[in-house]
Amino acid sequence: MDFLEEPIPGVGTYDDFNTIDWVREKSRDRDRHREITNKSKESTWALIHSVSDAFSGWLLMLLIGLLSGSLAGLIDISARWMTDLKEGICTGGFWFNHEHCCWNSEHVTFEDRDKCPEWNSWSQLIISTDEGAFAYIVNYFMYVLWALLFAFLAVSLVKVFAPYACGSGIPEIKTILSGFIIRGYLGKWTLVIKTITLVLAVSSGLSLGKEGPLVHVACCCGNILCHCFNKYRKNEAKRREVLSAAAAAGVSVAFGAPIGGVLFSLEEVSYYFPLKTLWRSFFAALVAAFTLRSINPFGNSRLVLFYVEFHTPWHLFELVPFILLGIFGGLWGALFIRTNIAWCRKRKTTQLGKYPVVEVLVVTAITAILAFPNEYTRMSTSELISELFNDCGLLDSSKLCDYENRFNTSKGGELPDRPAGMGIYSAMWQLALTLILKIVITIFTFGMKIPSGLFIPSMAVGAIAGRLLGVGMEQLAYYHHDWAIFNSWCSQGADCITPGLYAMVGAAACLGGVTRMTVSLVVIMFELTGGLEYIVPLMAAAMTSKWVADALGREGIYDAHIRLNGYPFLEAKEEFAHKTLAMDVMKPRRNDPLLTVLTQDSMTVEDVETIISETTYSGFPVVVSRESQRLVGFVLRRDLIISIENARKKQDGVVSTSIIYFTEHSPPMPPYTPPTLKLRNILDLSPFTVTDLTPMEIVVDIFRKLGLRQCLVTHNGRLLGIITKKDVLKHIAQMANQDPDSILFN
Amino acid sequence: MDFLEEPIPGVGTYDDFNTIDWVREKSRDRDRHREITNKSKESTWALIHSVSDAFSGWLLMLLIGLLSGSLAGLIDISARWMTDLKEGICTGGFWFNHEHCCWNSEHVTFEDRDKCPEWNSWSQLIISTDEGAFAYIVNYFMYVLWALLFAFLAVSLVKVFAPYACGSGIPEIKTILSGFIIRGYLGKWTLVIKTITLVLAVSSGLSLGKEGPLVHVACCCGNILCHCFNKYRKNEAKRREVLSAAAAAGVSVAFGAPIGGVLFSLEEVSYYFPLKTLWRSFFAALVAAFTLRSINPFGNSRLVLFYVEFHTPWHLFELVPFILLGIFGGLWGALFIRTNIAWCRKRKTTQLGKYPVVEVLVVTAITAILAFPNEYTRMSTSELISELFNDCGLLDSSKLCDYENRFNTSKGGELPDRPAGMGIYSAMWQLALTLILKIVITIFTFGMKIPSGLFIPSMAVGAIAGRLLGVGMEQLAYYHHDWAIFNSWCSQGADCITPGLYAMVGAAACLGGVTRMTVSLVVIMFELTGGLEYIVPLMAAAMTSKWVADALGREGIYDAHIRLNGYPFLEAKEEFAHKTLAMDVMKPRRNDPLLTVLTQDSMTVEDVETIISETTYSGFPVVVSRESQRLVGFVLRRDLIISIENARKKQDGVVSTSIIYFTEHSPPMPPYTPPTLKLRNILDLSPFTVTDLTPMEIVVDIFRKLGLRQCLVTHNGRLLGIITKKDVLKHIAQMANQDPDSILFN
Repeated sequence: MDFLEEPIPGVGTYDDFNTIDWVREKSRDRDRHREITNKSKESTWALIHSVSDAFSGWLLMLLIGLLSGSLAGLIDISARWMTDLKEGICTGGFWFNHEHCCWNSEHVTFEDRDKCPEWNSWSQLIISTDEGAFAYIVNYFMYVLWALLFAFLAVSLVKVFAPYACGSGIPEIKTILSGFIIRGYLGKWTLVIKTITLVLAVSSGLSLGKEGPLVHVACCCGNILCHCFNKYRKNEAKRREVLSAAAAAGVSVAFGAPIGGVLFSLEEVSYYFPLKTLWRSFFAALVAAFTLRSINPFGNSRLVLFYVEFHTPWHLFELVPFILLGIFGGLWGALFIRTNIAWCRKRKTTQLGKYPVVEVLVVTAITAILAFPNEYTRMSTSELISELFNDCGLLDSSKLCDYENRFNTSKGGELPDRPAGMGIYSAMWQLALTLILKIVITIFTFGMKIPSGLFIPSMAVGAIAGRLLGVGMEQLAYYHHDWAIFNSWCSQGADCITPGLYAMVGAAACLGGVTRMTVSLVVIMFELTGGLEYIVPLMAAAMTSKWVADALGREGIYDAHIRLNGYPFLEAKEEFAHKTLAMDVMKPRRNDPLLTVLTQDSMTVEDVETIISETTYSGFPVVVSRESQRLVGFVLRRDLIISIENARKKQDGVVSTSIIYFTEHSPPMPPYTPPTLKLRNILDLSPFTVTDLTPMEIVVDIFRKLGLRQCLVTHNGRLLGIITKKDVLKHIAQMANQDPDSILFN
Repeated sequence: MDFLEEPIPGVGTYDDFNTIDWVREKSRDRDRHREITNKSKESTWALIHSVSDAFSGWLLMLLIGLLSGSLAGLIDISARWMTDLKEGICTGGFWFNHEHCCWNSEHVTFEDRDKCPEWNSWSQLIISTDEGAFAYIVNYFMYVLWALLFAFLAVSLVKVFAPYACGSGIPEIKTILSGFIIRGYLGKWTLVIKTITLVLAVSSGLSLGKEGPLVHVACCCGNILCHCFNKYRKNEAKRREVLSAAAAAGVSVAFGAPIGGVLFSLEEVSYYFPLKTLWRSFFAALVAAFTLRSINPFGNSRLVLFYVEFHTPWHLFELVPFILLGIFGGLWGALFIRTNIAWCRKRKTTQLGKYPVVEVLVVTAITAILAFPNEYTRMSTSELISELFNDCGLLDSSKLCDYENRFNTSKGGELPDRPAGMGIYSAMWQLALTLILKIVITIFTFGMKIPSGLFIPSMAVGAIAGRLLGVGMEQLAYYHHDWAIFNSWCSQGADCITPGLYAMVGAAACLGGVTRMTVSLVVIMFELTGGLEYIVPLMAAAMTSKWVADALGREGIYDAHIRLNGYPFLEAKEEFAHKTLAMDVMKPRRNDPLLTVLTQDSMTVEDVETIISETTYSGFPVVVSRESQRLVGFVLRRDLIISIENARKKQDGVVSTSIIYFTEHSPPMPPYTPPTLKLRNILDLSPFTVTDLTPMEIVVDIFRKLGLRQCLVTHNGRLLGIITKKDVLKHIAQMANQDPDSILFN
């Protein structure tokens, strides 16, 4: 009768939108590992299998790094080409972007490196001139037209083929890493569509970035590659370790910051991050960075467009403006989160959400129409950031470097602070307008049904504010170097203030205000500048920004979106501060009917089937007897259904009156009674229990640290109730005066 | 009767050499925090108190950073001066070291910057000449004499004033951070004596470094500063968060690597490392680094002597020698750990351990006598490393840079690979001898009764091996640039090979082999070189080294020393791979007498006192009744003793026949019975339980993640036994075929 030795297919898997049981998954992996290790002593083949199994993790990391690095390179190159396509086309080869087109030209000098006969704006192609109002209107029209076309393609592709490809993906990845199942979210369709639509969305000129979605793309790569390895395909916990590493690789290529990427994965995204994963994430992040570097998408041997190297030191007094930037970043971050969430809630609850294509087209049209006349909004946001970060050199021809006496160098060969020229004053006005546009339009852009990252727009807002302040400080120091605050360190003709550094500090502050990243943010910025010296300004700004933003609202943008969508995510950073007990949270509540339990040796198949059909619980405790309520184990609904069905099909004579035994040995049966059904193998014999007087803070801690799905509550050794992860989340929401029914999934 | 509302002094504290209960400590902190938050709404003063409480952590970090940075600067400066004192003295001011002495001199050219009339060697002072055999003997004699004097002072101070000041301290700090109590290990005497003796030990020329002990010094600073803040003084868990951050600050000043320091604390030292601590550690590490930098102990604006910047790229083929260095590092690491542990065990178990002063003097004498004739052993180890890491420039006058055609530069102004001159050949011989001496003498040095770090000697061994290989490769490439392996990337007259990079990779490999650090090691080295480019060679070497070393012995040097000393440390990195169950580990074992329990409402004071005196358990489960064995809670021995003593002293009429109640309400008593003793307030009502069939791997996981001290075992709701942390550790030792009685403490 004991045919149940073999595992039944389906037992031990999960339904969509359910939470995994980390303890069970990790146990299963250890069993698997133990088996392979034991077998490895038997034969050479098994030994090779065991070694290859041990190294498969590293191989997987290598593949993830290669794939996500290549994809990032592809996205960078295509997005640059398509962004330039909005302005014109290269007759020397339509596949060249503006910069490449003119590189290959023989007709240009260094000064005029942006203008070459091979590059034709749309007006040149259509009406054969680039001058005059009509040409301007033609170019304007083509710009808006291309933008609308790209945006339309992006939103249509997302809507038709892969609805999961929209947004930044980071809130969902956080939830998945914490143990939630969303089938298809990291699948191959999502990968393909997200990669294509990301390029389209970025090129359409909307106020969004590719950095967040790159994390999603890298995680898709990780998930798909997992299918090649048994070890990771079948185990949800192991797969999540791989995904954590993939997230690190994604940030690594997004910012060219491998160490920052690992810390981002550790600080912001991951839930279970053992040390082994740290090392592997680091490896994946490095491989990805080197792959991208050998693709060299920007032609500058750097991984990102806005890599900078500063050379002038900063002065202690400058901490005051840096902290001001931090306050600005915090205020903007908190404001952005509030308004964006309010707008997203409106989209979710009203008719608005039903017309995603129209919404995207309207926002794109507004963005494009407002963006074209202003050169700082017309250029791509990463180019803008790159220009703002840039420290004016001798050869820089941008308006932001239009100082008077441009070519006077000081004795040491460095460029001293100089009075601003006309170009700078007009650039300041344009930047101020850009700032307002970006602040407003990003609120409506983030959350639309296209891939959209938030890093770049946040950084742009901060960088503009920083540059404005930086130029202001520079002029103040130039004209008033005899003021008490300047005269100790800033003599006339010295290079005191670096406006580019202010832009970078502002970018860090705004990014910190929105995402509430801390160490990873500073390290990413540190890897962008390559100087340990600038860590203190960056840290001062990031810290201020986080404190200010936290004071106005505890959640970062990703957590806010998780809550908006009702995902079952148990935040690891927040301490649970209330003084409730397990008995206040457990089901059944005081006036509810008793807890539904199974007994270990007295229920028939029919009894159990009735219970299954009458309830919707995902599992049932098994007790010695209803009277004693002493706990034996816990059985999952899904396993129970599958096992009974399977037994009815295959095991002769199992009928509705068969008795189900969860005990080790079933007693001898009198003849002519129906055969029994033994189900001890699906019984979890080590369910987690807490007493009814356990403070909820400890229960929350146990759920977090062990990754539980449910926990049983006992009083003096008797079973009293059950607490599920959903109960915990609802309780936390209730305690924070939020709607407990906002938690939607199991 | 209910006088026990007030906490009794002593309840909730720990004995020396005991393990803390993380769950209880964290609960206590949350209670405290809750109280302050609630009060803060009542008055302005309470609000200020609440805000200052919230910021006290940051203030503490600032103080730790300042103090440990200053101490590190002090140690650096004193050690350099005293190291030079062994060779001579500055007549321009005895407080100058050799370098400073000649800086202030007007009689020196750049070429002869080491020789100036103000600096007098001992032979010049004593016999007024620096030439000839006799002068050499005088200098030799003085060198050994000073070394012996320093070593004698160091060992005597340690022995008399602070025995805990010896060693590197990292194994003990790991154990303390995991929740163990060693009173005085981080106290003020240890701090003072360790700081002084560290300088003496480093100056004595022994093969040891100051880097590991600096972590101990920083942790002492952290612990002492904790006493100024109520929040941290009274809570063992909170204090450990501070110590984790202090460890990061220690590494930060030891290597000038703040990010590496934080990762070191995370990867190697810490046990409980929440994200809040990550951010604070980073802050402390930065402050410490900047403090040290403003002290500027080496006069080069760098935090460490061996900071380097390389400029030539490496080639893919060079990964072969780098991996060879990794293998060397792994082999040396494994060999060192085995021999050093064997020697330390010998010291512990034989007469040898009784004469620490003699031992130190003998080792110092041998080291000094062998070291003096060889210039590479005579100089301090960090100077040696600095010289080995150095890429030969045009102006370098060291023997290691004595190439032929020294001043021929190539077109690009860079120095091409050149044939080695006589100086290099003689340097190679001396370095080979140095390598042998360092390898042998370090085994006997690490573990003596003086402060001694292992980072620097390991790095020195690796750097020598690396430099030897690097110079070899360089000559090979120079003379055989037509070989197939070279001709694709190394043309004649090009700068193909950087021997300094080989030294650095070798240092990383050896350090990795000994400590088994991974990411933190690579990041520390990355911060030393300041180029993302060299991460791949460093990682290849560190990874190979770890794999090779792990294959020969699982434990790093710190874990090996923890096991040697029998500390109760539950390793978080190793998976527990055996298939045992909780019932196999719990006490009582199968044939033992029953578990000692208290009943909740039927035992008298005398009964309990008998149980206390007859057993040595640190706690007792409380059950409903002996018959039912249904669990109510758990009470600690220490709390029980203190409470009963206290009640006997203060509470009228509590006598031996008084009944102890652990229930919420004691039943009404007939008149003339002795008053009852209510002890529910010391009862832990939420003890952790597992079932007897729970796999030990899950139990180990629970102990690790929740930081438990003990866990009760039940079967079908009845109490069956208890598992303590010591039981778990003994079981792990047994399963690894080690002596389970090696675990000494609770």
